[in-house]
Amino acid sequence: MSRAARVPSGLRARVVTVSDRAYTGGYADRSGPLAAEALGLIGFAVDEVVVVPDEAEAIVTALEAAVDADVHLVVTTGGTGLAPRDVTPEATRQVVDREVPGLADALRAAGREKVPTAVLSRGIVGVRGGTLVVNLPGSTGGVSDGVNVLAGVVGHAVAQIRGGGHGHDHGGMDDRDRDRDRDRDRDRDRGSGKA
Amino acid sequence: MSRAARVPSGLRARVVTVSDRAYTGGYADRSGPLAAEALGLIGFAVDEVVVVPDEAEAIVTALEAAVDADVHLVVTTGGTGLAPRDVTPEATRQVVDREVPGLADALRAAGREKVPTAVLSRGIVGVRGGTLVVNLPGSTGGVSDGVNVLAGVVGHAVAQIRGGGHGHDHGGMDDRDRDRDRDRDRDRDRGSGKA
Amino acid sequence: MSRAARVPSGLRARVVTVSDRAYTGGYADRSGPLAAEALGLIGFAVDEVVVVPDEAEAIVTALEAAVDADVHLVVTTGGTGLAPRDVTPEATRQVVDREVPGLADALRAAGREKVPTAVLSRGIVGVRGGTLVVNLPGSTGGVSDGVNVLAGVVGHAVAQIRGGGHGHDHGGMDDRDRDRDRDRDRDRDRGSGKA
Repeated sequence: MSRAARVPSGLRARVVTVSDRAYTGGYADRSGPLAAEALGLIGFAVDEVVVVPDEAEAIVTALEAAVDADVHLVVTTGGTGLAPRDVTPEATRQVVDREVPGLADALRAAGREKVPTAVLSRGIVGVRGGTLVVNLPGSTGGVSDGVNVLAGVVGHAVAQIRGGGHGHDHGGMDDRDRDRDRDRDRDRDRGSGKA
Repeated sequence: MSRAARVPSGLRARVVTVSDRAYTGGYADRSGPLAAEALGLIGFAVDEVVVVPDEAEAIVTALEAAVDADVHLVVTTGGTGLAPRDVTPEATRQVVDREVPGLADALRAAGREKVPTAVLSRGIVGVRGGTLVVNLPGSTGGVSDGVNVLAGVVGHAVAQIRGGGHGHDHGGMDDRDRDRDRDRDRDRDRGSGKA
Repeated sequence: MSRAARVPSGLRARVVTVSDRAYTGGYADRSGPLAAEALGLIGFAVDEVVVVPDEAEAIVTALEAAVDADVHLVVTTGGTGLAPRDVTPEATRQVVDREVPGLADALRAAGREKVPTAVLSRGIVGVRGGTLVVNLPGSTGGVSDGVNVLAGVVGHAVAQIRGGGHGHDHGGMDDRDRDRDRDRDRDRDRGSGKA
């Protein structure tokens, strides 16, 4: 959160913790509340932290409820690994219409620099209607790193999904060109030689 | 283009701009001509820049025409984002027989270093017959960075696709080993300690 | 192998070389024995190096035999490129129940730093029953780099697959948090300022 990137005001998010042990009360859920707090810090209004067991049906129901509630973002934590009961990616794939593999890769790559086993997360990112669905791993470190990555892109993602439609503007300066110019200006301000 | 990597002579490419606004003439297409110019600089003979709207059917038709024309490479620009009308990856997936996810990832990763939102591109890379199909984003920056990445690998890719068949040579020194030796030699020439 | 990461004792692996030329004896197989040696160095008991031609059916049969033999890991080498007879990923996809795209990406990314054409490998990683299946490229360099990447994560992967189940522990300190703390301690020991 060092860059303090914030999303536009008015964006709503929901968190879904996927964990048998948190669901049965065997452990207190730490990752879900952490995700909610981190999303709040970047500007989301977080309506709820839902806890479900590692069951595909329960995960699908929770994700569809979030889509129906028309939140801009739903973040899951947990169930992305290789254990037999890790089914969050499969359940999420049932809900989303389109996947965004580059964002799922970026979430893993961010973790990989610190923790090599971050590559074992099978988490996906996808879009259903007006909602972006993001699978984060169950660890508190994975959640924290993941929200940091989201901070830089989720505002753009939501604008595109909700029909901002800047994504295929060829004639004038498009989002990418604007971003590039802004980055160049920022680098210049910093006295960096990198253009 | 700093390394001036060039593809073998005789390779032909086509560019397909996917953009409602460029198609209807609302804006002049900047990214398509830029892609054509950049591909020309690395050694491709570019036969055409086709402009189509953000419609899956139109994209499929344009890609199949490129395959039928037996070009070695067809590059699309536009329609890879999250907006509802961004359908280039889905249309491309209808055309290709096999995907090359590592190259799609590399294209995104190159952009990511400069522009975080590059990860939102859902562009794919695939093979149909003797043709490599590459989705680049619609921005001029994305096209420029993308062609830079392609420059280093597209010659190898085309050789494999057209049956060069070096890809599974186990007995002697294969492509990879040759590349490694060449890189080592180059590093040595530079006085770099990195082997 | 510089970090000398080793897997827990008792893990068994098998190597499958996929190559028409090695199969017909046109060339001696170098990559398969190298994979076996490298896996042995990180602690696996390697039971066999099987050589099969670039035929989907032969690859599927070899992979299913490895799953039936209940090895913890099966590594293929070869057949991951773009040549028409490169079918290892497609055959592997027929065998595995779940893919682990982040590990496949990490394997390619490791190669990419040295050899740009590493991104052309279409290799996948997946799980079938208690066995992790990993496609490496056919080159000796690709095998060596790949086993290096595996060394850091395959112990965790196998523990999760075989039901260690640490993957969705939310209440206490999970694998990721433990890793993070360990990394922090190590960095501190090194006098690095990076936490």
